[in-house]
Parts: sequence; structure tokens; C-alpha cells
Amino acid sequence: MPELDDELAVALRHSDEPFDAQAAAEVIRNDLGSETGRSVLHSWFEQAPAVDVADALDELSDDELHAALPLIPAKVQPDVVGYLPLHRQAELAARMPQAALITLLENMSSDERADLFNALPEDREMLLPALAQAEREDIRRLASYAEDSAGAIMNSQYATLTPELTAGQAIEELRRIAPDRETIYNAYVINDQRELIGVTTLRRLILAQPGRRVGDMMETKPISVRVDEDREAAAAKIARYDFIALPVVDAQHRMVGIITADDAMDVLADAATEDFQKSGGSLGGDWPTRMKDATVRLLYQKRVFWLILLVFANIFSGAGIAYFEDLITANVALVFFLPLLIDSGGNAGSQSSTLMVRALATGDVQMRDWAGMLGRELAVAFLLGLTMALAVSGVGLLRGGPAIALVVALTMLVVVIVGSLIGMLLPFLLSHFKADPAAASSPLITTIADGSGILIYFAIASAILPALAAR
Amino acid sequence: MPELDDELAVALRHSDEPFDAQAAAEVIRNDLGSETGRSVLHSWFEQAPAVDVADALDELSDDELHAALPLIPAKVQPDVVGYLPLHRQAELAARMPQAALITLLENMSSDERADLFNALPEDREMLLPALAQAEREDIRRLASYAEDSAGAIMNSQYATLTPELTAGQAIEELRRIAPDRETIYNAYVINDQRELIGVTTLRRLILAQPGRRVGDMMETKPISVRVDEDREAAAAKIARYDFIALPVVDAQHRMVGIITADDAMDVLADAATEDFQKSGGSLGGDWPTRMKDATVRLLYQKRVFWLILLVFANIFSGAGIAYFEDLITANVALVFFLPLLIDSGGNAGSQSSTLMVRALATGDVQMRDWAGMLGRELAVAFLLGLTMALAVSGVGLLRGGPAIALVVALTMLVVVIVGSLIGMLLPFLLSHFKADPAAASSPLITTIADGSGILIYFAIASAILPALAAR
Repeated sequence: MPELDDELAVALRHSDEPFDAQAAAEVIRNDLGSETGRSVLHSWFEQAPAVDVADALDELSDDELHAALPLIPAKVQPDVVGYLPLHRQAELAARMPQAALITLLENMSSDERADLFNALPEDREMLLPALAQAEREDIRRLASYAEDSAGAIMNSQYATLTPELTAGQAIEELRRIAPDRETIYNAYVINDQRELIGVTTLRRLILAQPGRRVGDMMETKPISVRVDEDREAAAAKIARYDFIALPVVDAQHRMVGIITADDAMDVLADAATEDFQKSGGSLGGDWPTRMKDATVRLLYQKRVFWLILLVFANIFSGAGIAYFEDLITANVALVFFLPLLIDSGGNAGSQSSTLMVRALATGDVQMRDWAGMLGRELAVAFLLGLTMALAVSGVGLLRGGPAIALVVALTMLVVVIVGSLIGMLLPFLLSHFKADPAAASSPLITTIADGSGILIYFAIASAILPALAAR
Repeated sequence: MPELDDELAVALRHSDEPFDAQAAAEVIRNDLGSETGRSVLHSWFEQAPAVDVADALDELSDDELHAALPLIPAKVQPDVVGYLPLHRQAELAARMPQAALITLLENMSSDERADLFNALPEDREMLLPALAQAEREDIRRLASYAEDSAGAIMNSQYATLTPELTAGQAIEELRRIAPDRETIYNAYVINDQRELIGVTTLRRLILAQPGRRVGDMMETKPISVRVDEDREAAAAKIARYDFIALPVVDAQHRMVGIITADDAMDVLADAATEDFQKSGGSLGGDWPTRMKDATVRLLYQKRVFWLILLVFANIFSGAGIAYFEDLITANVALVFFLPLLIDSGGNAGSQSSTLMVRALATGDVQMRDWAGMLGRELAVAFLLGLTMALAVSGVGLLRGGPAIALVVALTMLVVVIVGSLIGMLLPFLLSHFKADPAAASSPLITTIADGSGILIYFAIASAILPALAAR
């Protein structure tokens, strides 16, 4: 036993050190075989944070996971399963006896229950009659909200109070209902029609005179979110107002759920990840929870769209070059500067577009700010272009003489300004047409900047070079 | 009065509607002039969420802001000021009478107080003697932690208990200390040496038998963060474990502060923003809180570094082209496909690098996963390259005949694979050398992929075209 305890101590090191899921999985694999090992595991599963247990279990094979499941104490099982990736939850559920699955579903938190239920095979409807009525209705209701809506991430285990209760009675009521509520730190005050009329906190309640009425101490006009609003808008409200939970209401302002801060954090992290994917030129949408779990097929599907589209867009750049073939043949030194000039426009554009995409996503910049942003962008791009024109004019002088240097420097100034403006304006334009600004990806901006860069370069060259040659 | 109330109702619409700071600022400007207006404002400032009031005030000029300040009730003033951007807080502080500033500082939450104090002019040390001893020491202590550390974002207003208290006594104690604590929902159990030995929650305490000892019901080995650890690591722990607050300990495991979930959300959002900036080719670091407030000078400084560096990197691409000048002159049709081929490598690389940078940042993928990621990337890149080679071979056939089509298709396959591998590996490589993986920006990847793409293209062309011509 001391040996097992040592192993466990390593896996359990959840004080300052980050948790090592692979090491913990190794301990589980070893301990599953022996009687004493299993009893040690049982107590670890009981004490460790559910997310750590789930991460360790996720490192196991399906068979190992199935073997470990009975060792997870019933009290913590719903939490642990809820932290597993959805496809592993579904695999587990498929192997469970129906009675065990029903118990699991009944004890999961309501939002995770709805997610798991929706991930079960087609014949899942057969389970419904076996569920208690409250849970059955809850699943049906939560399943009815659109995937990206506030309704899809809310849970129905919130605490409500009525305004005529005293603070003392309210604390009693919260204590009574606490066991199956996600949080009792925020309590929502509703009237007879279940309309949300106020909010109060457990902190206020325990600080208040026990005889004071809830209706007299609550905050009226509480901030809430409509059940059909976007989930990101809901999460942004929680972040803005530093809430522990945000009440969700229907069109009649009746309370239907809460969204908790931890779920809001996940939504915001997922939204940032999706914006990253898009800004790099992949499609957003249904990615697995962890990039690690993305299949070759999925990655192909998410990446091929823009790559192919941009190939065809680049044919225009090629056509631009073909149009100036005589100029190139006459001044083949111009090709030396081609990658440098067109890349610089794309690079400046990538900078501008990522800055704008993120600023629009966080709400730092809004649609109406576009004109102010445009002025600032022009000033910055002019200065950047000037600096870079100076930097390349030396190279131009060395490689091609003063005429080429002039062409290259002028082109640099113009492509940097044009690239920056395209990069800055495209997110606003997409947003204006109700498209996602994050679609203004670096590859898209680069391709557009390249095409315009080629035209600008050769147009300037064909204007300046023959004129100089004629002198 | 009814008119003012109507205006106010619009600005106050903080139920489902997002708050409109500009509209609210307009109301403040109008109302500041009249007696009744000021009284309406006073009550709005008192009732509205502090962050809304701060956002509205931030739309005002310095003079208007200064004029509005006295109307903000003393009770909410520290919160409202804490939500203003730091440079506006400092401006306000500079105009305040010293006594008012001292009162403000004493009542701000400890982390915001330390931030404001550090933003004050050089002579700020003169204020210290006027502050109460506790606040003075607190400012000195918080100022001593490195900017990116957990210590820099923690606050010292946490609730502690001792293990021998009963649940009933503990609730009494929390009620007593609540007024100047950031949260009382988590209570930290410490021993005589102030070492953190456990954690419990208000929820557990009110559910427990009043006579039960805290030491018997607390969670032992609580998850904590060291005061000198990275702030992002601390925020990630809060997100992972769904905490309301995370205890911060010193090297001797003594409790020194807490980090609250709302601050963790801000840290994670800022970290994502910084990764965005870097992935677009700008420098990270000291940006203002809102992109909107970035000056032309700052934007220039953040953007010029990579732009200039990549200009010089692109000179190698130019040299690559110059090396093949004869080949180009002989087959000027090759230039038509140049942008298309080199862009495709860069685009595929941008996709891979952004996916990896984000996955490394969220912890979805870790250093040790690189080999598995490499295998998957190869498979995906091969399929993508093949698809794109097919797509361009038709264009190659039309524009240049079968020989050119073969060169173009082969090049496409190779550049997409090479670009993808560079994009996927560079973030790991940077991470391995303790650099920030996010420095593998789209512009950097594009430039590297362009240079290699040119070499690959002309190398394949010079191998195939003369051979075919010789037949």
C-alpha cells in the first residue's frame, strides 16, 4: 500500500503544480489490476477535482475507461462524465446498462445532460419514458434552442425567490434547494407569472437584517439575456458585468435559466479559437473540443475551401503579370523585387486585418468607429510605407540603378498603404453585410494585396521606365 | 423632470439590451447643466452597474469628466473609477484634491488601487504617509510583484477562517468581515503560520450542521498558485477548475491573496488578443486596454519591426528569382504561375501555424505531441496539395501546354506540403527554444514559404523543362 500511495501522491499533486493527465492515466492503468489498487483509485476519484479525473480517464482506451467507470463513486460520476469530450461520453453511454445510464442522466447538470442526450444514437427517444418527468421535460426544452443561442448553454438549476420572503426565510429556502442548484450565490426574484423582477445575492441576504423583505433589498431591473440571443453576446455580458451567473429570460421576460461564469469562459475561449482558425484561413464551425482530436478528414474539409478559392483568385494575379510580359522581358530585373513588394502589401494588410478582427470581436471597436480607424490607418500606413520605401530604395539602387530604385520605392509606399487599407476595411465591410469579420483572413488579405500589388508595381514601372529611357 | 427621466430610461436600459455608452454620455452632458439634471444623474450613477457608468464617463472630455465626478456617490466612486482606463484614472487623480484622492485610494479594491498608484506621477510617494497603514503596506507589497506574475493581478481582500471554528461561527465571521472582502463565497482555512491548509465555501457552511468544525469539512490540499507564477497560468487554473477565486501563496505556502474569476477572464481575453496581434505580424506587449486608444506612434512601433525584417528576408526570394533569370527569360509563361504557387504554400502554412499557435496557447496540444501532429499534418497537406495540383493542372495545360502543367502541378503539391510543415513545426520550434509560439505569424510563414516556393518552382522547372525539350 505505501507504494500505491506514493504513486497516487504524484498523480494527486494538485496544489501549485499543473495536473499531469498522462501520469495519472498510467497510475490508473497499473492500479486497475489489483484489489488494493482499485480501492486507492476509488478514493482518488472521490477526492480529486472532476476535471482532473476526466482528463486522466480521457487518456485511457475505451476498454480501460469502461473498466474504470464502476470505481468512480456515484456522487462524482455525473460531474466526471460531464467533463469528458462528448464523443467519449457517448461511447461510454452506449456500453452502460440502461438503468445506469438513466441514473447518470438524471444526476448530470442540465446543460451537460442535454448535450449528452443529443449525442446519443438515433434510438435515444426510447430512454425518455424511463426518465423522471422533470428531467424529461427539461431535456426536451433545452434541446429546442438553436445551437448558438444563449438557450443552448444555459442550465435550469437556478435558485428563485419571491419578493415577500424575508432575508431569513430566503436563506432557509436557498439552503433547502441548494443540493440541486448550480449556484445559490445569485438568487433571482420572480413574480407569480415567473417574470424576472429582481436579483439578490447570498452575500446580501446574510448581511441583511433577517426580517428585511427580499423585495425591498433586491436589485430591480436586473441585467439578463434573451434565450434566443447569441451565446457569445450572453458570455460577453457575464465578462462585462463580472457576474457569477446571468439570468436567461424568454420573450415574455419569464425566467427560463442561468448561464454560469465558467460556461461563459468556455464560450469566449471557443469564440477566440474560432476567430483564430478563420484568421489563418480555415473554416470555423464544428471543430472538436480539442484540436488534438481533429481528424485528417475534418482538417482537410476545413482547409481546402479557402486554399482552392484563393488559387483561382491568384489566377488574376497571374493574368496581371502576363499582361506586362513585354515589360518584364525588357526589364527582367523587375522580377527580383516582385516577391518583396507584393509580400509587403500582404504583410501590412495582415497586421491591419488581425488587429481589426480582434478589436471588433472584443467590442473595443464598433461599426460606427470605421471612419476614425480609417484616418488613423492612413497615417500609420503612410509612415510604414515611407520607412519601407527608404529601406528598399538602397537595394533598388544597388541592383537596378536609380530608375528601378525610384519605381521600387514608389511601389512600396503605395502597396503598403493599399494593403493596410484593404486589411483594415475588409473586416468592417464583412461586418456591415452581416458576415463574420474574421473571414478577412491573412491568406485572403495576402491574395488580394498580391493582385493589387502586381498591378501597382507594373503600372508604376511602365509609367516611369519608358519615360526615363526616352530622356 | 419627466423628460429627464425618459432620457435616463433610454441610457439605463440595462436589461436585455446592450448598454450604449455614447447615448449615456450624451445624457450626462445634457444633464450636467441643470440642478434637476444633476440630481437625476446622481441617482443613475448610484443604481447603474459601475462598468456602464465608467464607459459612459470615458466618452466625456477631461473637463466634463471632472465636472461629473462629484455627482458620483462616494459609495460607488471607487468601483466606477476602477473601471476607467488607467490613463483616465491618472488624469482624474491629478485634478483631485489630495484628501479626496486619499479617500478614493483607501476604498478601491486592492489590485486596482495598486495599479492606479503606479500610474500616478513620480511624486506619488508623497501620498503614502497620508494613507492608513494597512493600505500603505498593501500598495508597497502589491507593487513588488513582477508585471506578468500572479501577484500583479491578485487582491488582498480575501476571507480566511481557522480550522477550529464551527460552521456557525464561520458564517458569523464571514458576515463580520464581508464589507471589505472581494468575495466571501470561498473561505480559505489557514493555520497559525498563515499557511493555506484548506478551502471551504459559504454554500457548504450554510448547508452544514452549525456545530460542525471547519477543519472537518474543508477540502484539504486546495489548488493554489504561487505568487511568482505567470498570470496566464493562474487564469488558466481558474478556467480549468471553474473557480470563483483562486488562492495565491508564497514560497512558504503562506496565503497572500486571491485572483477572482472576473480578473482571470480579463487576463485570458488579453492573452488571446496578444496572440492575435502576434499572429498578424505585430508585436505584443504594452498595448492600451482598447485598440481604439492606440496612437499612430504606437501602431507604427508595433508594426514596423516585422515589416522591415521581412523585407530583408524577401531579398533572398528575389535573389532566388535572379538566379533563375535565364530560365525565366526562356519561359516567361512561368511567371504567370508564380503568385499562385508561392501564395498557396504561404496560405497552407498560415492555416497550420494559426491552428498550432492557438492549440498550444489553450493547452489542447503540448510540446510532446509534436510527432503525432507532424504525421497528421503530412497526411492533410498531401491531400490538400493533391487537390490543388489537380485544380491548377488544367490552368497549366491551357496556358502553357503539358510540360508547364506538369511543372505547375508538381510544384503545387510540394509547396503545399512544405508550407504546411513549416507552419506546423515553427510554433513547436519557437516553444522549444522558450520563445512565444505566436511569433510564428502569418507574414513570417508566408515569407518563408515564398522563398522556399520560388526555389522549389524553378528547381522543378529547370529539371523538367530542358529534359522534355531535349526529347
